[in-house]
Amino acid sequence: MYDVARIRKDFPILSREVNGQPLTYLDNGASAQKPQVVIDAVTRAYAHEYANVHRGLHYLSNLATEKYEAVRGTVARFLGAASEHEIVLNTGTTMGINTVAYGWAMPRLQAGDEIVLSVMEHHANIVPWHFLRERQGVVLKWVDMDDSGALDPQAVIDAIGPKTKLVAITHCSNVLGTVVDVKTITAGAHAKGVPVLVDGSQGAVHMPVNVMDIDCDFYAITGHKLYGPSASGAIYIKADRMAEMRPFLGGGDMIREVTRENVTYNDPPMMFEAGTPGIVQIIGLGVALDYMMDIGLENIARHEADLRDYAFQRLRGLNWLHLQGTVQDKAAIFSFTLDGAAHAHDISTILDKKGVAVRAGHHCAGPLMERLGVTATCRASFGLYNTPEEVDRLVEALELAHDLLG
Amino acid sequence: MYDVARIRKDFPILSREVNGQPLTYLDNGASAQKPQVVIDAVTRAYAHEYANVHRGLHYLSNLATEKYEAVRGTVARFLGAASEHEIVLNTGTTMGINTVAYGWAMPRLQAGDEIVLSVMEHHANIVPWHFLRERQGVVLKWVDMDDSGALDPQAVIDAIGPKTKLVAITHCSNVLGTVVDVKTITAGAHAKGVPVLVDGSQGAVHMPVNVMDIDCDFYAITGHKLYGPSASGAIYIKADRMAEMRPFLGGGDMIREVTRENVTYNDPPMMFEAGTPGIVQIIGLGVALDYMMDIGLENIARHEADLRDYAFQRLRGLNWLHLQGTVQDKAAIFSFTLDGAAHAHDISTILDKKGVAVRAGHHCAGPLMERLGVTATCRASFGLYNTPEEVDRLVEALELAHDLLG
Repeated sequence: MYDVARIRKDFPILSREVNGQPLTYLDNGASAQKPQVVIDAVTRAYAHEYANVHRGLHYLSNLATEKYEAVRGTVARFLGAASEHEIVLNTGTTMGINTVAYGWAMPRLQAGDEIVLSVMEHHANIVPWHFLRERQGVVLKWVDMDDSGALDPQAVIDAIGPKTKLVAITHCSNVLGTVVDVKTITAGAHAKGVPVLVDGSQGAVHMPVNVMDIDCDFYAITGHKLYGPSASGAIYIKADRMAEMRPFLGGGDMIREVTRENVTYNDPPMMFEAGTPGIVQIIGLGVALDYMMDIGLENIARHEADLRDYAFQRLRGLNWLHLQGTVQDKAAIFSFTLDGAAHAHDISTILDKKGVAVRAGHHCAGPLMERLGVTATCRASFGLYNTPEEVDRLVEALELAHDLLG
Repeated sequence: MYDVARIRKDFPILSREVNGQPLTYLDNGASAQKPQVVIDAVTRAYAHEYANVHRGLHYLSNLATEKYEAVRGTVARFLGAASEHEIVLNTGTTMGINTVAYGWAMPRLQAGDEIVLSVMEHHANIVPWHFLRERQGVVLKWVDMDDSGALDPQAVIDAIGPKTKLVAITHCSNVLGTVVDVKTITAGAHAKGVPVLVDGSQGAVHMPVNVMDIDCDFYAITGHKLYGPSASGAIYIKADRMAEMRPFLGGGDMIREVTRENVTYNDPPMMFEAGTPGIVQIIGLGVALDYMMDIGLENIARHEADLRDYAFQRLRGLNWLHLQGTVQDKAAIFSFTLDGAAHAHDISTILDKKGVAVRAGHHCAGPLMERLGVTATCRASFGLYNTPEEVDRLVEALELAHDLLG
């Protein structure tokens, strides 16, 4: 029994008001709120247990190091990785994908080599590859979706040619909610000898993930969407790929020895963690992932599927509202526009007056906006603490917006 | 009147015990403790005011954005920058220097071009340049110090030749405490047409900094050493240099438009802030810098100078202790070894039993260790909350270590 009322009590911000209305927080796709256990872990770390990690030897440093390093195992468990040595701790998906772009792809890809990606990628999974196009002539090969927002895995596999060196694909669209069959894509790509990077920013939030089952080579997650602190995150990198990478950020901790003439590097994953890391953020991320696993990733997914079904039903009842992304088994992320000239920003402003927080804009998905033929949409994205009543409040607020703007 | 007793009350961790002894925290060079106002700001942000920043339009997003963006001005004020547009917010000095290495130096320096740096640099200001040596044949030119740890600014200027493209130098050695005359160096370098990057990781902690007075081109700081959250930081980049840079990390927020074929970039400094930033960490950094400025940067420097003088006096009284770095007007950072075979790690372990937290190791300064002819030292580094009594406790603990190990 999923007790959403009890879960909501874990999140202090959910009891606040906004503009004199109870907060209806439907901007989880941008960032999720934090349970008290995460906030407490952050506070405790700073107030009682703080020091820099690694090479410490004094009590507080050893304590912080133990707590920090334990998160590597928590992330490995959360993602179903074979070993915690395949987990690089970082500040989020953007850092994870840039690490792969600079550390694996840049020294490896030549002019004319191709990267296959879908039209529904987030800019975090586009711009690092555009850098390679601009700087070394790599070709970006785009795979289209259908009008419902579904992506045929076979279309991705078919796009892989002899010059393709990487498939970079989202697990779940941040705009449409579409879940991509990354397991089938990976099997097809591997059959052609091509590694697969999965952008798990949204995917890991909304469904249980097992990287060994998917068999992907890279899987990037971001902590602030996983109910953890801002600037926390991780990337799973398969051991074989990690061994092929050169270091990306240079600094302390990622080296073995530095002289005036030379530098040798630490073993991975430490090779990819330069400088003082986000000690407290990572400790908080571990608590957030444990919080999710305690509720149960399957339970969260089931709760969100119910919300999705109900939201579909309610939103489809508004005949002046256009939904982008109508795949039935998607994640509970709804993008929409209104009939007529109503701008997404105006809609979100009216919703905000009713306490309903949604996002308006291009959602860092330029090629997808182009594909949809819009410049901006509103997006309501649900999380583990949202309720059917909040779907109702969204619909009420939308009706008001329609009245005012329609 | 500097009321250190009152200041210590602001830091909850300072009232705790370690190994049954009051904590004597002398590991500030690695990371500083956090005042309650910073911890409260972090807690409040997560518990009541959290959302993703930029392009938000709902109440919480606008609130978080205002608080986040205000910190740009706080950092500009803290560093004496002409404009907040010259401040890139990031996760610390390692990120700042890598941003310059990848964004400014990599596309600009050719094989045979030189970077001038001192033997006392931290790995964060070495390894990114070693990357350029390894990957594109850039030459690292090292300037030696004298045996006291002093660095002659003229020696740095003299090392600048026609192939020199950058001087990368610390403001303050993290091992020796030596303060480098970066203003004279910058004037000399600019006379030869060469920009200067200053690693301000330690410098900004221990003295008032004015980047317009120094006239340097880049000044990197790290928040966790400035009594702020882990994974917070910033880099000052002079507008002219910023205009010469290409983007480094790719992702959301740093773009103007992304299509399948093309990408255009946001104006600096946003061009260098890819993806969801460390929202709460940056808000906390702003509070930490305000906390320091409220006490007064001159006042902090004077307090630490008194501590330094007293520590010098006490430590020089131990004739079995070797001090590395004996420049009189240095920052209050003391590295030392003991006569005989006592390993730095054993010393720090004994000190820890007395509640005295110091660091032992190479302090991410390989070339400096080589120059000093040691593999490791102990380091006691002082901050704004330390007291003369803590110097005494350090000396007592050292006497015990000498008795046990000598």
